[in-house]
Amino acid sequence: MFDFMNELHEECGVFGVFGVEDAATLEYFGLHALQHRGQEGAGIAASDGSSVRCMKGHGLLSEVFKTTDMEKLPGQNSIGHVRYATAGGHELANVQPILARAKIGTLAVAHNGQIVNADELREELENRGSIFQGTSDSEIILHLIQGERGNLMEKIAKACRRLEGGFAFLILTEKNLYAIRDRHGLRPLSVAKVGDGYCISSESCSFSVINAQFIRDVRPGEIIKFSTHGVESSFYTEDCEKKTCAMEYIYFARPDSTMDGLNIHTARKETGKLMALKDRGEVDADIVIDVPDSSRSAAMGYSEVSGLPLEMGLIKNRYVGRTFINPTQKQRDMGVKLKLSPNPDVVAGKRIVLIDDSIVRGTTSKRIIAMLKEAGAKEVHVRIVSPEFKFPCFYGVDTSTKGELISSRMDVEQLRQTIGADSLKFLTIDDLKLVYGGDHFCFACFDGGYVTDLYSHRQSIQ
Amino acid sequence: MFDFMNELHEECGVFGVFGVEDAATLEYFGLHALQHRGQEGAGIAASDGSSVRCMKGHGLLSEVFKTTDMEKLPGQNSIGHVRYATAGGHELANVQPILARAKIGTLAVAHNGQIVNADELREELENRGSIFQGTSDSEIILHLIQGERGNLMEKIAKACRRLEGGFAFLILTEKNLYAIRDRHGLRPLSVAKVGDGYCISSESCSFSVINAQFIRDVRPGEIIKFSTHGVESSFYTEDCEKKTCAMEYIYFARPDSTMDGLNIHTARKETGKLMALKDRGEVDADIVIDVPDSSRSAAMGYSEVSGLPLEMGLIKNRYVGRTFINPTQKQRDMGVKLKLSPNPDVVAGKRIVLIDDSIVRGTTSKRIIAMLKEAGAKEVHVRIVSPEFKFPCFYGVDTSTKGELISSRMDVEQLRQTIGADSLKFLTIDDLKLVYGGDHFCFACFDGGYVTDLYSHRQSIQ
Amino acid sequence: MFDFMNELHEECGVFGVFGVEDAATLEYFGLHALQHRGQEGAGIAASDGSSVRCMKGHGLLSEVFKTTDMEKLPGQNSIGHVRYATAGGHELANVQPILARAKIGTLAVAHNGQIVNADELREELENRGSIFQGTSDSEIILHLIQGERGNLMEKIAKACRRLEGGFAFLILTEKNLYAIRDRHGLRPLSVAKVGDGYCISSESCSFSVINAQFIRDVRPGEIIKFSTHGVESSFYTEDCEKKTCAMEYIYFARPDSTMDGLNIHTARKETGKLMALKDRGEVDADIVIDVPDSSRSAAMGYSEVSGLPLEMGLIKNRYVGRTFINPTQKQRDMGVKLKLSPNPDVVAGKRIVLIDDSIVRGTTSKRIIAMLKEAGAKEVHVRIVSPEFKFPCFYGVDTSTKGELISSRMDVEQLRQTIGADSLKFLTIDDLKLVYGGDHFCFACFDGGYVTDLYSHRQSIQ
Amino acid sequence: MFDFMNELHEECGVFGVFGVEDAATLEYFGLHALQHRGQEGAGIAASDGSSVRCMKGHGLLSEVFKTTDMEKLPGQNSIGHVRYATAGGHELANVQPILARAKIGTLAVAHNGQIVNADELREELENRGSIFQGTSDSEIILHLIQGERGNLMEKIAKACRRLEGGFAFLILTEKNLYAIRDRHGLRPLSVAKVGDGYCISSESCSFSVINAQFIRDVRPGEIIKFSTHGVESSFYTEDCEKKTCAMEYIYFARPDSTMDGLNIHTARKETGKLMALKDRGEVDADIVIDVPDSSRSAAMGYSEVSGLPLEMGLIKNRYVGRTFINPTQKQRDMGVKLKLSPNPDVVAGKRIVLIDDSIVRGTTSKRIIAMLKEAGAKEVHVRIVSPEFKFPCFYGVDTSTKGELISSRMDVEQLRQTIGADSLKFLTIDDLKLVYGGDHFCFACFDGGYVTDLYSHRQSIQ
Repeated sequence: MFDFMNELHEECGVFGVFGVEDAATLEYFGLHALQHRGQEGAGIAASDGSSVRCMKGHGLLSEVFKTTDMEKLPGQNSIGHVRYATAGGHELANVQPILARAKIGTLAVAHNGQIVNADELREELENRGSIFQGTSDSEIILHLIQGERGNLMEKIAKACRRLEGGFAFLILTEKNLYAIRDRHGLRPLSVAKVGDGYCISSESCSFSVINAQFIRDVRPGEIIKFSTHGVESSFYTEDCEKKTCAMEYIYFARPDSTMDGLNIHTARKETGKLMALKDRGEVDADIVIDVPDSSRSAAMGYSEVSGLPLEMGLIKNRYVGRTFINPTQKQRDMGVKLKLSPNPDVVAGKRIVLIDDSIVRGTTSKRIIAMLKEAGAKEVHVRIVSPEFKFPCFYGVDTSTKGELISSRMDVEQLRQTIGADSLKFLTIDDLKLVYGGDHFCFACFDGGYVTDLYSHRQSIQ
Repeated sequence: MFDFMNELHEECGVFGVFGVEDAATLEYFGLHALQHRGQEGAGIAASDGSSVRCMKGHGLLSEVFKTTDMEKLPGQNSIGHVRYATAGGHELANVQPILARAKIGTLAVAHNGQIVNADELREELENRGSIFQGTSDSEIILHLIQGERGNLMEKIAKACRRLEGGFAFLILTEKNLYAIRDRHGLRPLSVAKVGDGYCISSESCSFSVINAQFIRDVRPGEIIKFSTHGVESSFYTEDCEKKTCAMEYIYFARPDSTMDGLNIHTARKETGKLMALKDRGEVDADIVIDVPDSSRSAAMGYSEVSGLPLEMGLIKNRYVGRTFINPTQKQRDMGVKLKLSPNPDVVAGKRIVLIDDSIVRGTTSKRIIAMLKEAGAKEVHVRIVSPEFKFPCFYGVDTSTKGELISSRMDVEQLRQTIGADSLKFLTIDDLKLVYGGDHFCFACFDGGYVTDLYSHRQSIQ
Repeated sequence: MFDFMNELHEECGVFGVFGVEDAATLEYFGLHALQHRGQEGAGIAASDGSSVRCMKGHGLLSEVFKTTDMEKLPGQNSIGHVRYATAGGHELANVQPILARAKIGTLAVAHNGQIVNADELREELENRGSIFQGTSDSEIILHLIQGERGNLMEKIAKACRRLEGGFAFLILTEKNLYAIRDRHGLRPLSVAKVGDGYCISSESCSFSVINAQFIRDVRPGEIIKFSTHGVESSFYTEDCEKKTCAMEYIYFARPDSTMDGLNIHTARKETGKLMALKDRGEVDADIVIDVPDSSRSAAMGYSEVSGLPLEMGLIKNRYVGRTFINPTQKQRDMGVKLKLSPNPDVVAGKRIVLIDDSIVRGTTSKRIIAMLKEAGAKEVHVRIVSPEFKFPCFYGVDTSTKGELISSRMDVEQLRQTIGADSLKFLTIDDLKLVYGGDHFCFACFDGGYVTDLYSHRQSIQ
Repeated sequence: MFDFMNELHEECGVFGVFGVEDAATLEYFGLHALQHRGQEGAGIAASDGSSVRCMKGHGLLSEVFKTTDMEKLPGQNSIGHVRYATAGGHELANVQPILARAKIGTLAVAHNGQIVNADELREELENRGSIFQGTSDSEIILHLIQGERGNLMEKIAKACRRLEGGFAFLILTEKNLYAIRDRHGLRPLSVAKVGDGYCISSESCSFSVINAQFIRDVRPGEIIKFSTHGVESSFYTEDCEKKTCAMEYIYFARPDSTMDGLNIHTARKETGKLMALKDRGEVDADIVIDVPDSSRSAAMGYSEVSGLPLEMGLIKNRYVGRTFINPTQKQRDMGVKLKLSPNPDVVAGKRIVLIDDSIVRGTTSKRIIAMLKEAGAKEVHVRIVSPEFKFPCFYGVDTSTKGELISSRMDVEQLRQTIGADSLKFLTIDDLKLVYGGDHFCFACFDGGYVTDLYSHRQSIQ
C-alpha cells in the first residue's frame, strides 16, 4: 500500500471555475471532491473582474474556510488548491494559490506537479535578482512569466518552454483564467461545462459533484485561456508526447475519475482481473481481500476472474485525523492500531489472497501481513497490481531517494521474506500497457525511463 | 439506505476498561473504534481507586479530547460513551457518562439503548422528589439505583428489574466497574481480556484495535462486576430470552464486529447471497453496485452468487464533516452533491442491481436512483437486504413515528414507483432467520412483534 | 493584592432579564459587564413561555457563545452566570445555570455565594435519596425546592429557610423569574428597569451597559417574583439583618457599581483618603502608586489628601489569557514577568507609597516590592486600605484554610519584614465603618465575627 | 480618543533577540509586551545558525502560537512582529516577518512604519521584473536589498538610502541580525542587554518584562549588526536629523516605555499639568476624569496641578475581543454599550473636566460626552492634551485622508458644538515642545510640516 502518511510526496489537486456566479463557493465543492489529493493545506483565489483576492490556510478545506469567508471572495472566476505536506510543510508560504502583484497586474497560481529543473531556474532567477518567499514551484512559474516579453498568453507560453517536468497549473488574473498542462501530460487536467461557464479540475470526479458536464482533457502542452470573449486554445510547444503518469491510475485518483479516456475504477479492476488470470492454477486460496480503500477495485476484479469470494478482511477507521491522540509507547507495544484493523472472524483459518496497489518501503505491507496472521490467517499471498517500484519520481510524486524504495534494494523473493508473505507477485509494465491500452504512459518509477532530463535530480538515482 | 443524517435515532456506543494502566487512553482508542455509532458527543470517566473524574463535550472524540486531557483522567478503570444527536441534541446535560454523587459514593453511567418505560419511571421518580438535569435514560438509572436497598450489586439488580427496553450500560465507581445487558440482549455488549485487565465494548471491533482477546458476549440479563477481587457474574432476573436487535446486523455495527457469535460482515454478505438466489432468473442486469459503506458486504454476496460483476458505481466523500459549508440554494438546484456521487463511466448504459440495506423514509433511495439515471444508468433494480421497515423501534433506534416510515404507508409496488426504481425487492423475516440461524432476534421493526410492553409508546404505533 | 490566580474562591456573577425581546442577547451584554467576577465558565438559560433552554461552557462569554447560539435561546426571559474556577474547576457539571426537570416543571438556577451548611444539607438530601451530578450549591437549592410543599413561591421560601450563608440566586421557570438574596444580604443583587421589562444583576455596572435604570437593591431575605402579572415581593424570613460583604467594596466589584447605596469607586477612594489622613506626618515619600487595577481608586484618594503625586509605577499586561505560553524555568529564573511590570523611569530613585487593597498570602506583595526595588525604588511604603485578612470566608470567598492567610500567622512587623516593605500599615475595621457609614457589613474575614453558624467549617478556623 | 477600532493605521511593533537560548520563547514574551501596538496578526522568525524558520497567523500572539510551536522555531536568534489590521487586512501575505530565499541566503524582515515612496519603488521594481505577493513595505525592502551590490551590510545601507519615510526594521539571516532605524528616527527602536545576548524592541516596556537592561535607542539612520563577532554600528547616511513621532508619546506607546530619553507616562502627565496651568481661573469644575486607558497619565497631571479631584468616571470593559457578539440594531437603539460605560454615581450632578489624548473623527468624543450627560453630568469640559489633528500621517499612522480629520474641516468652536462639549481646549505645538524639551519631533499631523517629500501621497493633503 502506498502509505500517504509515511512517504514524502507532493501530489496535489487544482480546481478552477470561470464565468459562474459565486465562483468561490462552487470552487469549494469542486475542490472538496479533490480533498483525497491533499489534506494539509487549502486555498482559494477569486476574481470579480477587477480584483484578485486569496485566502488559504493549513488543514482540510472545512477547517480553512467558514461560510462567511465566501463573501470575502466575490466574483465569477476562481482557482483553488489542496496540498499534501512536504518536508517544508509547515510554512504557510508554500500553501497555494500564490498571489503575485507584478507589472502586468495581479496573478494567482495554483499548481500540481513538480518542475525537475526548479533548482536551475531558481538559481538563474536569483542571480537575476528575484527573491522567493517559499519553496514552491508556483513561485518560480510566477517569476518566469513576469520576466518574459509579450502579452500574458505569450509570457505564459515562453515561461512554460523553460519548464521541464510534470505540471498542471491554473492562473487567475483580474479578468481571465488560464489552464496549462505539461507537454507530456504527466499530470492530469480536464475541462467541463457548468451552468453558463466552465470548470477545470485535476480529476473529473469534481464534475459529478457540481453537476458539470465533462468536455475533454486538456492536451499535453496546451494552454487554454478562458475570457469573457470565449475559450482560446494554443500550445506552448510542438514537442508534445502523451505520457500520463501511471501512478494516477494505480493509487492517486478517485475511482470515479476518468483520465485521458480511461476510468480509474475500471483500470484498477482490470489489473485485478489480469493478475487473477496470471495466477490461474498457481495459488490455492480461500478468499480475496483488499487493503481499503486503494486496492478495492482491483480486488473486485481478482475475485471476479478467480472465482474466489471477496471478503472484508481489513477495516479502515474513517475518523483518524490530525488532532488525534497518539498511543503511548506502552500501548504501541501492546499492539494498539489506529488506521487499519483485521476482521478476525473473516480471516481466521483462511488462506488469503491480499490485493495491494504497490509496495514502497515495505513497512506497511509487513505490518498488515503480521496483523492478519495474528488474527489467525493461515496463508497470505500478496498480489501487487503494479510493477516493482524501483525508481524515484520527479514529476510530482516525491518518494525521496532510491535507497528508500525497497524494490530497488532487493528482488521479489527477498522482499517476500522481508514482509512475511507466503507468496508475492507483481504485474509487469507490459501487463499495465495491456490493461491501459497503449504506450502513452510514464512508467519511470518502474523502469527508470524518465521522459525528461533530470537535471540536479540525476544524482538521486545513482 | 438508512440515512443517519436524516433519521432520528439514539444508537450510541459504550466502552469500558478495568485494571489497566492509563485506562483513559486505552478507553480513547477503544471508543474510537465505536465512533461510527455516534459522532455528536463523547465522554470519558476514569477512576483511580479513590476518585471518579469525567470529561465530555460535543463532537468527535478527536474534537473533545486533547493529549493533555488524558492526564486529568488518571486511573486503571474507565468507561466512555459516543453519542448520536437527538431532538434535545444540543444539551450538554445529555452527553454521557453522567456522574452522580450520592449517598453510596460517586457513580458514572454510560448507556446505550432506550428504556421504554422511561416516562413512567421518570414520573414516579419525580413524584418521589427526584430532579433531572437532562433527558437521558442514564439519569433515570442513577436515580433508581440510589433509591433501592442493599449493596451496590443488589441495588443495580433491583433497579434493572424496573427497566424495560433495550439497554447495555456500564457503571464506574471509585473501585469497581459493572457491565449490564438487558434481559433480551437487545443491545450488544461483549467482554475481552487486555493486558492484565479487561475491556467491555458495544462491539468487538474495539478489541482488535487495542489487541484485546475476545472472551464472550455479556448474556441477556447479566450483571458482571469487575473488582480487584476478580470478576463476578449474576443475573438480575431469570426471565431472560435472547432477542438481539436485527438492525445491528443490518446496518449499525462495523463489519469487523462479531455479536452473539455472528460476524457482521458475514451476516450481511449472506443476505446478499440469499437475495441473489431469490433473484435467479428474474433480473436481467449488467452490474451490481453497493451504497457505500453500509451495503458493501451484501453487494459482495450478491455478486458472488449471481455472477454479475461488482462495480464501484457510487462514491462517498470521506471529508464531509460538521463544519462543512453548505451549497447555496442555487447550487442545490444546479445539482451540487456532497456525500455521494455517481461514477458516470461505470454506470452509463448499464442495467444495475443496486444493493441497499434498508429504506426508511425513501428520500435517500429516490435521490440515489435519480443520480444514477442522470449519470446514464439504463435500469436500476433495487434490492433491499432486509424486510420492509414498518414499525418504529423503541429499543434504541428512535425512528420517530410510524407515519414517517414509508413502508408503513405503501406497498412494495407503490414504493417502487415513488423512488423511481425499475424493480424493487425486499428480504423477508424468514430469510433473515435463515441467514442468522435462528429465532433469537428482535424483528419488531418489521412485524411489530415487540418483545416488551410499550407503555406510553403504544400510541406511536396506532 | 488579592491575587485571583493564586487564591481559591468562588465569587461569581449572575444576571437576569425578564420581559424583553431577545432576552438572551441582552443577557449576554449584561453578563459581559460581570465578566470580571468570573472567567472560567459561562452559561445562559432562556425561556419563551413554554420551554427553558440552556447553553454553557468553559471560558469567557465570548469563547462560549457564538452569534448563532442566540437563536437557540429564544424567549423574553433569561438568567445567566459567570464563574470562577474552583478546586473541581474542570467539571462541566458545575458550570451554571443548572437545569432541573422536576415534577413541578423545568427550573434553571444561577447562583452566587456559598451555603455554609451545604455539607449537612447534601448529606440529608442524599440520605433521602437525592443524587448530585456536580458539587455546586445550585444543585442543593434545586433539590430542596423540589422537596418542599406548596406553590413554587412557597417552595422557594421554605427551601431558603434551610439555607445558611451568603447567596444571591436567580430561578427561571417556563413562565416566571425569581430573584433571591440571603437574609444578611451578604452577596449583592439589584434590580433595574429595561425597556418594558426588568433586569437583575450582581452588580449595577451591568445596568449602564444596557441602558437600564436602577430601581433598588434586592433586600436581605427578599424573594422577588417577576411574572406577566407584574412584580411581587415577599420575604422568606423575618430574621433579616443587613451585613453586606466588605470584600465586595474592597476588591470584587467594578468601580462603576453601586451596592446598597454606596458606590464602589467612591468607597475605595475614601479608604485611600483616610489612610493618607492617618499617615500625616508619618511617612516621607515622593510618589504614590497603585497596583492596577484594584487599588487605583484608593491611590487617587491617598494622593488627593497627601498631596503626593500619583504616578503609574506598575503596568498590567491586558493580553494574558488562558492559552498563554508559559516561560521556561530558565526564563523564570531570568526574571520574565507576565502580568505586572514596573515603570523603571518612574520609580527609580523614588520613595514610594504603594497602595494595595489587601494581603492574602503575601507572595504577590513580596514579588511586587522586589520588582520595584530592582527597578530602582529607594523605599516602598505599603499601605493596605483594608484590615489584616485573618479569617477565611465561607460566604462566597473561599480562601481555603486559616493557615494560608499570612496575617493569621504573623503580626504587622513580621509581615513587613517578610514582604520586604520599608513600612506597612493597614486600616482598621473602625476605619472601614467610618468610611462605609455604618455597622451593617460583614467583617468576618478581619475579626472572625461570622454572621451565621459555620457548621462543618468551624474546624477550618481553629 | 484615538479610536483604534475606527481609524485606519499601520502602527505595529517589532522585537528581536540575538544570542540567547530559546530565542523564540523570549521573543514571544518581548513581543507580548508590544501587543497593544497590534492585535490582528503576529509572527516569529528564528534562526539556529544554519536555517531561518518562520511561523505567523491572524490574531493575538496567544491565538497564533501554542507551546509546542516554540520547538519548531529553534535557535538563539529571533525577530517578531505584531500587526494592526489595514485595508488589505485579511491577506496573510501581509503578516510579518516576511521570509525571502534569495541569492544571498534566507532573510526574514519585520518592519514597523511606512515608506512614503513605496509606490514609486514598487513600480520601479516591477519594471525591473520583481513580483510581490503582498502589499507590505517589507517586501519592497527585501527586493531592494537583493538588488544592490556588496556584502549584506552594504546592500542594506544602499537599500535604506532609497527609502523615505518612517521605519524601524529588523532583518534576520542564518547567522546575524540587523536593526535599522530611519534617518529621522520617526519610528522608535531601542536595544538592551539580556543574558549573554541582546534584544531590540519598538518599545522599552519589553525590556522590563524579560528583565533586560536598556542600553540605548538606535540612532536615526543607524544600522546595528549583531553577530557572533560582536556588535557593529554604522550609518546608512550622514543626512540624519532626529524627528521622533509625537504621536508615540501622545497615544501609541505604553506608559512604561521610554523613547529617546523621555518616559511616556511622564511626558503625558506633563501635558496634563501644562493644560491645568493654562486653564487656571478659566474653568469652574468639580472633578477630572480620563478616558481609559490612554489619557490616564495626563488626567493625573491635570488633577495634580488644578487641585481638582481625579475620579473614575468612565470604565473600560477589558473583555471585548474579536469573537464578541454584536448587539442587535434594536439593542443599539436601546443604548447598549460595549467598550466604555459611565460611572453614574460619580458623574451625576458634576461639572467635569474630561481629559482626552486627541480627536480624530470626532465620533468617539461625541459618544462619550453624550454618555456622560445621560448619566447626569452637568457640564463636560473637554481638554485635549495635544494640538488639533489636521494632517494625515504617512510615516506609520495611516489616518486615510485629510477630509476624515474633523479638525481639518472645522475650527475649535465648531468642533465643540459638534461633539456637544461645554468647552473645548487643545494644547499647541509650542506647548508640546515645552513639555518634550526640544524641537526634534515630528509634528506633521498638527502643522503639515512633513520631514520628507511625500511623493504620491502629496495629493492626499490637498
